[in-house]
Amino acid sequence: MVELYNCNTKTINNVSKMEELLLESVRISGATTLNSNFHKFSPHGVSGVVVISESHFSIHTWPEYGYCALDIFTCGDEIKSDLALEYLKRELEVGNISMIEVKRGILDFPVKLLHKPEVSKNEKF
Amino acid sequence: MVELYNCNTKTINNVSKMEELLLESVRISGATTLNSNFHKFSPHGVSGVVVISESHFSIHTWPEYGYCALDIFTCGDEIKSDLALEYLKRELEVGNISMIEVKRGILDFPVKLLHKPEVSKNEKF
Repeated sequence: MVELYNCNTKTINNVSKMEELLLESVRISGATTLNSNFHKFSPHGVSGVVVISESHFSIHTWPEYGYCALDIFTCGDEIKSDLALEYLKRELEVGNISMIEVKRGILDFPVKLLHKPEVSKNEKF
Repeated sequence: MVELYNCNTKTINNVSKMEELLLESVRISGATTLNSNFHKFSPHGVSGVVVISESHFSIHTWPEYGYCALDIFTCGDEIKSDLALEYLKRELEVGNISMIEVKRGILDFPVKLLHKPEVSKNEKF
């Protein structure tokens, strides 16, 4: 979860630009885009989500405060979310940033949550 | 951010059912759906996001572990996310649950982040 403050207000109010930037950040991270949905609010603000094979990227912008709430939700060890974030920081001309990393799916046994696990011979589904 | 453990594995592997349930949970919360995207993974698992006027609901499921990661991201004071969660807990037959509430967009001045603010006469956009 990333808080992006003091961004370029014109950029974060441009829905097609925001979709282009978020899709490019997904590509840079090495994740696989499944689909994306972006919406422009009136009078200002953008919401967009990219569903990826490895979960999702989402962004909500409040141009009137220069603020964006970015979520990079991934699974597995392969996704370079740091590269995606560096790209977005640069493109959005972010002034200040804060972030929290949260581990999801703390199970009672060691397992990596991948969406495409190998099918074992004991496959139950 | 909600962790749903020991869910009904058949339900959380059913992409059309999961979309129906998440859309209904949005309706129950009082939020406004803008669009939704759901994806079924092979051999199992579902990812889905509903973009709402007030941000988004997302869910990622790992039926092989009976686990779902649910995010309810809202803005404003109007959305009854507790009712949405109660509904999903019941429908998914959730065994155990844990959650974290995170305040996003901590700005330097008191403001409510709404996507449809009233346009003031000093409107800058």
